[in-house]
Amino acid sequence: MVCKSSYPRIEKKNKGSGRQRSNQIGAGIIILKYTKMKIILIFVSTLDGKITRWGDPEVRLWSSHQDQDYYKKIWNESRLIVMGSKTFDTGSFPSVNHQLIVMTGHPDKYENLKIPGKIEFTSESPAKLTDRFKGMGHEQMLVVGGPHVATSFLKEQLIDELWLTLEPKIFGTGDNFATGIKLDINLRLIHFEKVNKQGTLITKYAVLKN
Amino acid sequence: MVCKSSYPRIEKKNKGSGRQRSNQIGAGIIILKYTKMKIILIFVSTLDGKITRWGDPEVRLWSSHQDQDYYKKIWNESRLIVMGSKTFDTGSFPSVNHQLIVMTGHPDKYENLKIPGKIEFTSESPAKLTDRFKGMGHEQMLVVGGPHVATSFLKEQLIDELWLTLEPKIFGTGDNFATGIKLDINLRLIHFEKVNKQGTLITKYAVLKN
Repeated sequence: MVCKSSYPRIEKKNKGSGRQRSNQIGAGIIILKYTKMKIILIFVSTLDGKITRWGDPEVRLWSSHQDQDYYKKIWNESRLIVMGSKTFDTGSFPSVNHQLIVMTGHPDKYENLKIPGKIEFTSESPAKLTDRFKGMGHEQMLVVGGPHVATSFLKEQLIDELWLTLEPKIFGTGDNFATGIKLDINLRLIHFEKVNKQGTLITKYAVLKN
Repeated sequence: MVCKSSYPRIEKKNKGSGRQRSNQIGAGIIILKYTKMKIILIFVSTLDGKITRWGDPEVRLWSSHQDQDYYKKIWNESRLIVMGSKTFDTGSFPSVNHQLIVMTGHPDKYENLKIPGKIEFTSESPAKLTDRFKGMGHEQMLVVGGPHVATSFLKEQLIDELWLTLEPKIFGTGDNFATGIKLDINLRLIHFEKVNKQGTLITKYAVLKN
């Protein structure tokens, strides 16, 4: 049985076999397991930290095909996706298998676009938002930007992992994924991979929390 | 004989032996060889593209020991080093084996600090500066910043390689290594290496010129 709840899960362990055996402590011992919702921030960036070319939000004009395929796969595998209203306004997002959470100071503006269980618009803080979804059995929440939303999650130490694609480019001007406030966040590299001839690097970092 | 001149070198090839043999075309053939001066831009950056923490130029307060050792080694191996006056003003730079070129709009301000062949202060453009040194037999010019100098070299397509260390950190605010103008530079990853447990990445990129 795979349980995706963040509530404590109670298992009665009897004589295990196969994959269960390695987890077995002893016959009849009760083990409490928690499933934590992992919050992932995902971006593609240049070497000078730009996530837009000169402010143009259309990332697909310069990101590599390898990154676009990677992002599409992650998008498709994610049930719960969080974005800012500016990101929502500039794209079209298939929501067949997803639950989109759009963070906005004016949820009433989007009243006619909401679809219960599919798309919602909220002015909740990042902390309140994540608290609400932690109790709903999600394994993962994908935060896809933009910078204002990313920074508000980073500031509150809510991000568990940063999945950053580094394109071998320099733009000089444009948006950064963290913006406007002093942060001092340490991370640890958990994965890195060169995915094409130009040297696009797909990386994953765990945020080290204070 | 190893010739480090950027002027054409004329060699008379006779019957070669040992290491020369593989380069031998034929007895009596004259080969012209050019030695190109490679211009390298070197920086250490956070994942959000910051080269200073909140504007403080003291990089050693947050860069890893591995990057500091690496930078020291490269510094020691470099004969010709270029920096802006702000970078010069904030540090002390041993110049026993180096020739420091400090770019400034006011070379006269530094008149009493110049040491012929060791430290010079110039208001030349990056193009004029590199042209002057290309003819002096240097194999390499190391550009160590700051952002204004880096950007002026990048804008003129003078940088051959970017040697970028990526520290697993996010600062939110601070300086970027390219700044203030729109650039559209493509590069190719030629080296990358994880150098410690936290996942500091030392990378080298070749600039693809138009």
